[in-house]
Amino acid sequence: MSLIVQKFGGSSVANAERVFHVAHIITDTYDQGNDVIVVVSAQGDTTDDLIAKAAQINPAPSKREMDMLLSTGEQISIALLAMAIEKLGYPVISLTGPQAGFVTDSNYGKARIRRIEKERVENEIGKHNIVIVAGFQGMNRYDNITTLGRGGSDTSAVALAAAFHADLCQIFTDVDGVYTADPRIVPNAKKLDEITYDEMLELASLGANVLHNRSVEMAKKYNVNLEVVSSLERKPGTKVKEATDVEKMLIKGVARDNDVARISVVGVPDSPGVAFRLFSTLASKKIDVDIILQSIGRNDSKDISFTVSKGNVEEAVKAVESLKDILRYQSIERAEDISKVSVVGAGMQSNPGVAAKMFEALMDAGINIQMISTSEIKISVLIERKNSTRAVAAIHDAFLADLPQ
Amino acid sequence: MSLIVQKFGGSSVANAERVFHVAHIITDTYDQGNDVIVVVSAQGDTTDDLIAKAAQINPAPSKREMDMLLSTGEQISIALLAMAIEKLGYPVISLTGPQAGFVTDSNYGKARIRRIEKERVENEIGKHNIVIVAGFQGMNRYDNITTLGRGGSDTSAVALAAAFHADLCQIFTDVDGVYTADPRIVPNAKKLDEITYDEMLELASLGANVLHNRSVEMAKKYNVNLEVVSSLERKPGTKVKEATDVEKMLIKGVARDNDVARISVVGVPDSPGVAFRLFSTLASKKIDVDIILQSIGRNDSKDISFTVSKGNVEEAVKAVESLKDILRYQSIERAEDISKVSVVGAGMQSNPGVAAKMFEALMDAGINIQMISTSEIKISVLIERKNSTRAVAAIHDAFLADLPQ
Repeated sequence: MSLIVQKFGGSSVANAERVFHVAHIITDTYDQGNDVIVVVSAQGDTTDDLIAKAAQINPAPSKREMDMLLSTGEQISIALLAMAIEKLGYPVISLTGPQAGFVTDSNYGKARIRRIEKERVENEIGKHNIVIVAGFQGMNRYDNITTLGRGGSDTSAVALAAAFHADLCQIFTDVDGVYTADPRIVPNAKKLDEITYDEMLELASLGANVLHNRSVEMAKKYNVNLEVVSSLERKPGTKVKEATDVEKMLIKGVARDNDVARISVVGVPDSPGVAFRLFSTLASKKIDVDIILQSIGRNDSKDISFTVSKGNVEEAVKAVESLKDILRYQSIERAEDISKVSVVGAGMQSNPGVAAKMFEALMDAGINIQMISTSEIKISVLIERKNSTRAVAAIHDAFLADLPQ
Repeated sequence: MSLIVQKFGGSSVANAERVFHVAHIITDTYDQGNDVIVVVSAQGDTTDDLIAKAAQINPAPSKREMDMLLSTGEQISIALLAMAIEKLGYPVISLTGPQAGFVTDSNYGKARIRRIEKERVENEIGKHNIVIVAGFQGMNRYDNITTLGRGGSDTSAVALAAAFHADLCQIFTDVDGVYTADPRIVPNAKKLDEITYDEMLELASLGANVLHNRSVEMAKKYNVNLEVVSSLERKPGTKVKEATDVEKMLIKGVARDNDVARISVVGVPDSPGVAFRLFSTLASKKIDVDIILQSIGRNDSKDISFTVSKGNVEEAVKAVESLKDILRYQSIERAEDISKVSVVGAGMQSNPGVAAKMFEALMDAGINIQMISTSEIKISVLIERKNSTRAVAAIHDAFLADLPQ
């Protein structure tokens, strides 16, 4: 007898037919003798509809009231899914995030889980109920409803799996696993059977929208056995686990991120403290900076370039402009028609040829590299947007084309 | 400084414009120096939409899951109304029924309020927040969400007014008060300035859909000052209060109820225990019987007629048929094209001429009476549906036409 946590996203429960499809996956798992805890998101476009309703009334509502509003989306889903499972004749109970014991901090809209009070879910499991929990939500210590922000339902599922020492946490999606590249870009991309937490983290942050980083970080911390699996087909997905268990491959995947913009501060005096002033100002405005590149100083002057997500460009430029008197730069340049393309793989740590092979593939494809950033398990390059599809294909071919399908 | 509870129904908050209209009523009350607790229902057709969603999945879901689903409707309303009040620049907080301390029994779908834990609302009032509470819902002692059933939001408002000893509990509706008859039937019907709890109870149960009986019963029990008032126009409504405070009028109103069906059990042996067997069987099936009429026995045989609401006709007939061997009746007759028309007024207790005057008005209008039922403050007659509008007008003219407008 195992305990399995299963998470289903909003599109998986978008209508009555899909709700029953999900209900059958759950009851089959239960029939195999498992205890089952299910986490479910708001149906289809429910969250967007609620946001639109709020916008009609108040373009800047308090985050507390926004969470009060948005949490209803998941509550509708859990009730409907429970009703479908009742219809199939199984014992089931739905629980809101607060009822399931999710205690969070008070950071409305992107709350962090403080702890899970396990008593209620434990009792329901003890009664052999299938337990359906509303993802994405919890309650702070003042008895107010909070939501966990983007990817919150994945995080809810992993947190439950960690708290209850589940044998497996299955994240059901509309793809059947994690691929070596986006199959829409690279037709011969292959599904991976296994991937390490760290590789998954790099892929997620690089635009492979399979799992949200917070959930993978939590899975790594508590050593939760994750599986990304198709909600449409019954076949094995991709297991996300400890590095020691995972087959060593040089490269696990190629990812593209289009939500990136480059800002260059040109002609900054080559004196100490310049970078500190610039990036501490950006940090104080909560602007996340990704890649940073500083040219070598020449003639007492240097250039500093960095990338931010597109939504932060305006604010970042303003922040730089506010430092005009301190930084005494010559000009600010910005580029938004760019992409970040990356290769990810724990194997590259001990293999110095990866960067050279990647750059060769890009050169052969006639693609110019604007910026380069590396970590222990990934290499990212910034290139023109229009070349990004060809770049992904070229890099994929160089590293991954000979993988067994 | 007074404490005022204001309740707004679903049509009052059906869209953004109406939400702001309600928000202005609330903030005006607050500006006059009052503490304000607001109870609000689900927007417009939200509850019906949720019921339809559930029906697609399971025609007979558990009531617990139904309450989990339906309670989201009010939660959406409170968040949106709070956002509107934030937009107007006032301090406000929304609370679900459970957060507002509504503790109920476990009778899902029509739970009764056990008590209100006042601490949270008290704290918010202490912070001078306008408090927006989700009507119609609470939590049982097992931490499950319950709903209060029909008219539940009125009951929520009165319960809060009772618990916090509010100076006034205003029920906002799309009419501007309680009328001597339905103005759509009787154009010269007049608005009442005051009415007693008992009169309001009779009128409500007789089809004047202004206030739900449970809320009026609770208001009577805790002596809550109720006011039925228009959400559309700013003018005084109808005060519902203790009999001693209310102007004594012979008759307060004429009401019609079309949701009524008559069943006659014809040719029952005139022996003891027949009525007991019949009505105990109906009671055991939870079929509410309204008027009962038994003919005087002749030739050792009698007829028993009774009325039920239309939704219970089939089940009631089946129940009677199941007693065929015991009751040894000749036939069952049913009539569904009938109406119940009633006059209500505490004044009639000490005025024996009311019934005669009512019957005379019906005779003059050429309308035949099928059954009669009386209580201390009302007289009801059963007549053909097609005559009911004329009957209401004729009775209203006889008693109420000379009231000052």
